[in-house]
Amino acid sequence: MQTITSTSYPVHFQENGYKELSTFINQKNITTVFILVDENSNEHCLPILQQELTVDVTFEIIEVESGEINKNLGTCMSVWQALTDLGADRKSLLINIGGGVITDMGGFIASTYKRGIEFVNIPTTLLSMVDASVGGKTGVDLGVLKNQIGIFADPQMVLIDPIYLQTVSEKEITSGMAEIIKYGLTYDQTLWEKFSEKTAEINIIDIIHRSIEIKNEVVLEDQFEGGLRKILNFGHTIGHAVESHFLESKDKKTLTHGEAIALGMITETYISNKLFNFPLKDLEDIKKTIITIFGIVPVLKSDYPTIIDLMKHDKKNVNGQVNFVLLEGIEKYKIDCKVSTDLIEEALDYYLA
Amino acid sequence: MQTITSTSYPVHFQENGYKELSTFINQKNITTVFILVDENSNEHCLPILQQELTVDVTFEIIEVESGEINKNLGTCMSVWQALTDLGADRKSLLINIGGGVITDMGGFIASTYKRGIEFVNIPTTLLSMVDASVGGKTGVDLGVLKNQIGIFADPQMVLIDPIYLQTVSEKEITSGMAEIIKYGLTYDQTLWEKFSEKTAEINIIDIIHRSIEIKNEVVLEDQFEGGLRKILNFGHTIGHAVESHFLESKDKKTLTHGEAIALGMITETYISNKLFNFPLKDLEDIKKTIITIFGIVPVLKSDYPTIIDLMKHDKKNVNGQVNFVLLEGIEKYKIDCKVSTDLIEEALDYYLA
Repeated sequence: MQTITSTSYPVHFQENGYKELSTFINQKNITTVFILVDENSNEHCLPILQQELTVDVTFEIIEVESGEINKNLGTCMSVWQALTDLGADRKSLLINIGGGVITDMGGFIASTYKRGIEFVNIPTTLLSMVDASVGGKTGVDLGVLKNQIGIFADPQMVLIDPIYLQTVSEKEITSGMAEIIKYGLTYDQTLWEKFSEKTAEINIIDIIHRSIEIKNEVVLEDQFEGGLRKILNFGHTIGHAVESHFLESKDKKTLTHGEAIALGMITETYISNKLFNFPLKDLEDIKKTIITIFGIVPVLKSDYPTIIDLMKHDKKNVNGQVNFVLLEGIEKYKIDCKVSTDLIEEALDYYLA
Repeated sequence: MQTITSTSYPVHFQENGYKELSTFINQKNITTVFILVDENSNEHCLPILQQELTVDVTFEIIEVESGEINKNLGTCMSVWQALTDLGADRKSLLINIGGGVITDMGGFIASTYKRGIEFVNIPTTLLSMVDASVGGKTGVDLGVLKNQIGIFADPQMVLIDPIYLQTVSEKEITSGMAEIIKYGLTYDQTLWEKFSEKTAEINIIDIIHRSIEIKNEVVLEDQFEGGLRKILNFGHTIGHAVESHFLESKDKKTLTHGEAIALGMITETYISNKLFNFPLKDLEDIKKTIITIFGIVPVLKSDYPTIIDLMKHDKKNVNGQVNFVLLEGIEKYKIDCKVSTDLIEEALDYYLA
């Protein structure tokens, strides 16, 4: 499958990826290869990687606990300390293998350790494959605020192999579908129709490749989030707030990112219909298709104020103003839209109805 | 005094600096100006700054405790949290006013907050004026390891005003002299001679301007520390290790950076004499001049093993190999030199003799 060239690095696929990574390690004068894993990727993914690589170099494995709750500066400090104790120097390489928590946090750890060492990302969940492979975003959460601390930093390469999807749960794969649907709705009707028409067979590697290709086009067009790149936030303004709220509420289950974004896409499409006449038929189709895949997030009316308050802390806000990406139709986005609190509540009502 | 143009930003001097900063704040669409201070710069420097600026914008002051001991991720977390609580967004500006701890840490905090907000540095100590104004280094310590976590990130501008030196102690000013001597020994004999000839009057703004000019030439020539820039480490290989050792020893006084680098320059010049025939007369002159200014750091023979061990953790090491910058003569540097443990101990003996 064809390599995708991002800003400054390649995204390689399957066997070609291992070949390229082996060559990279062998040709660069790398002192030690560190591999950042969580307990899941350590057990299920690392053996695959080690078998596929043909390199003659020392590996040091650093394991952190899985989960968004551990994507914080405390975990970073323990990894920075481990790198220090294991003698990592500026010619060391960090390979991050795992879901988005590992690749986002590992990228941040690498690019701030001794003012930056090189890193390679191997996403093992569908979400991290389609969302985190390009864009150069690294970071960790600050309390419940997602990715509040981070920088833009590019890996040396990204390696995609759907074999790793066999190591994660069905739920995790479903979660990643939300981002793919987002690419479809904002940028590629054909991709969306693969879901809406309930095509019997979805070829996973094809939709991963197409999603990365789309994100890459968007990112290359707009590297610092001035314009087009904002479409990547579709479904995320309300979605992120709901995700944060459920994460910080002791009596609520933690949502997958996909569940939250699914809710976000339905509600933001509803708002799009009210403000920009997004076609009602498509809205209903979107709601039905997405709820069939993701089910309903049990939001309560009493949650609304907190959710709306959390939106005000979104990184993308300027002057305390919440900015939405909305749609006039599929593939027809409008950025920097203002939405009243009443309409947000109405959209949540529509979602729950 | 003439503005110095660094990689991507200007270093302005005195009244011209305030004018440029006021224009910058007024012309950019900045939502809120945050000012990072410690208790000293808050009391003594901030009033000067606020008086000189002619801007119509809200200021929010964030104070942290002074001292290298607080240049850590815990302090960063409290500042990131304060920025969050005060609603800092991507169009906020952070002005760091204080010594190197404030400018290094503030640069790191700004450039990692929401993946980067703009910042301006106003160094108020001699050391931070001549050392931290150019080079784009930001960072914090990890345990006793100085600047272990950080990135390269440029401020929007740097503002130099020697009036702030009236607010810091004599000891602090002396500390900064070590870096100026370093620029002299490695790069500009004329600058060195201002010290060695004990010129009655040293014009402080002139030697600050010349030091920044030198560092800027070096940094522009070699932005990512491949070659020439390594001369900035002269005196720092042994100096940093001694500084770290005194910082982590409960029964030792904390050294100023200048005291440690003064020791480093004498010992590394001694090694230069042994390995590269650095002229003995100059070595003796350097030892005498530097000790007259800085006194003697009370290193004990029993400290040697720890000091040598700490050198092995220097960020600049590759493959565990400690690299020295040495001199064949004044202005004649040699980079990437290996030195035996015995010779390092001999150099410390010479320093103490």
